[in-house]
Amino acid sequence: MTIDKAVITAAGPSQRTLPLQHLIDRDGQDRTVLAILVEEASKAGMKEVAVIVHPGDESACASAAEGASVKLHFIPQTAGPGYARAIWSARDFTGADPFLHLVGDHLYVGSEPGACAARLIEVASRERCAVSAVQATHESLLPNYGAVGGQPLAGHTDLYSVDRVTEKPTPTLAERSLIVPGLRTGQYLCFFGMHVLTPTIMDVLDSLLASDPIPPPSISSALETLAARERLLALLMDARRYDLGVNYGLFMAQAALALNGRDRDEVLTRLVQLLAASPARKVNL
Amino acid sequence: MTIDKAVITAAGPSQRTLPLQHLIDRDGQDRTVLAILVEEASKAGMKEVAVIVHPGDESACASAAEGASVKLHFIPQTAGPGYARAIWSARDFTGADPFLHLVGDHLYVGSEPGACAARLIEVASRERCAVSAVQATHESLLPNYGAVGGQPLAGHTDLYSVDRVTEKPTPTLAERSLIVPGLRTGQYLCFFGMHVLTPTIMDVLDSLLASDPIPPPSISSALETLAARERLLALLMDARRYDLGVNYGLFMAQAALALNGRDRDEVLTRLVQLLAASPARKVNL
Repeated sequence: MTIDKAVITAAGPSQRTLPLQHLIDRDGQDRTVLAILVEEASKAGMKEVAVIVHPGDESACASAAEGASVKLHFIPQTAGPGYARAIWSARDFTGADPFLHLVGDHLYVGSEPGACAARLIEVASRERCAVSAVQATHESLLPNYGAVGGQPLAGHTDLYSVDRVTEKPTPTLAERSLIVPGLRTGQYLCFFGMHVLTPTIMDVLDSLLASDPIPPPSISSALETLAARERLLALLMDARRYDLGVNYGLFMAQAALALNGRDRDEVLTRLVQLLAASPARKVNL
Repeated sequence: MTIDKAVITAAGPSQRTLPLQHLIDRDGQDRTVLAILVEEASKAGMKEVAVIVHPGDESACASAAEGASVKLHFIPQTAGPGYARAIWSARDFTGADPFLHLVGDHLYVGSEPGACAARLIEVASRERCAVSAVQATHESLLPNYGAVGGQPLAGHTDLYSVDRVTEKPTPTLAERSLIVPGLRTGQYLCFFGMHVLTPTIMDVLDSLLASDPIPPPSISSALETLAARERLLALLMDARRYDLGVNYGLFMAQAALALNGRDRDEVLTRLVQLLAASPARKVNL
């Protein structure tokens, strides 16, 4: 199974400006989030990357990704709202090929740029199936994520065979159907925001979207259908993802890049100086 | 001397996007740098604020400052380049009145929002003259700032009578003409990026700009001329300014706001967790 196409979704109404934000990357260069994501894909061996954008954002996104070393396509999401429709918008681009998928409002920090995507692709290529990257996540955070249920794959410590996929499960539902052997109590396998998907996902989305359902289907329900048709694995990532859309999301992503990169010493020194100069108690405002 | 007008310069080619950047302010609200600066002026009692913008940036800056509780004017800088011309662009707005001036690419963090500007205005109103806010700054940082020389004002620990003003002095020049009694060796009084100016500054700029000099005059040379004509004081600020235009400038400003605001505990906890999760040595890239 050769995987050399990637799809980055960047069309969500509350998320479309996030890929355009500037950060200083791990080698000290000022770059946009989108450029950093495209580099993650390109360092993992992708040759073409499609960015799904809000109609009209094409040129802003093209500027933000300028200088990329892969072929870029900017595809407007014209079929209606929702994350599932964003992926479905890439169906002509992906055709009969499996593809890497990254969400445009997350930043991934592994041992080096490209390491997260490369690891996921290595596993998907070897296992010849769809693989979703996951992180063990405390139940208090379930309202933010899609979560999977399944069984550990024999002979592996970081791979699971997925049979259930649920979008933002309640703790009760999670406890009933998403407990995964080997994880600590109260921990669940939640999406990392990175997947390798097979063309089957587009067939599944064809059916799910045919009736133009409101609200639009979640990608979790599409993945659960996919898991019923063919093998879907979950890969426990030894890396961190930063959700840029939450409070202080961009700030924490910048901190993670700086503390894992070339400027670690400088930034750490400046943060400690700043801390020393700021009062120990909360300021009354 | 009543001071109720402020001028914020935001037209510099390398700085004009900085006032549009979003930060989470000290009370946890997502706001632009410009909105935070306008609030600094408004909390210090200003009734009207002129923002000097690059021609064409009027509407972007107006959106960025939306919700301000003062009357706003957006004045395009059409007379040519340079910081001195930016201030000069406000001459019809300031007229015969003294005014507060803030630079649009700095963020000021005092004991509470508005405290820096309020302190400066209090001193200028009492002393009835122009006052530049300054910080004791190590000589290694002289290439970044304008610096003043002068004598402590009798009966004050934080006020100086200014007789010399030099833009980005060399250490040799600083040692020869900018040593201020009472500061530690190797420390100089450098601009904080906040001034109260009298209408005299516009007369001085009229003369300095009349011959259309290249390069354009610095605000330091204008202030030195002003100091020869009337009294100019320097006020040592008990606060911090963050230059947003340097490397990690926005990041450090965000850290300063967070660590001095409502979300201090949350942000500090997340930074420490992040530090714990990041490797102790630099990553090889």
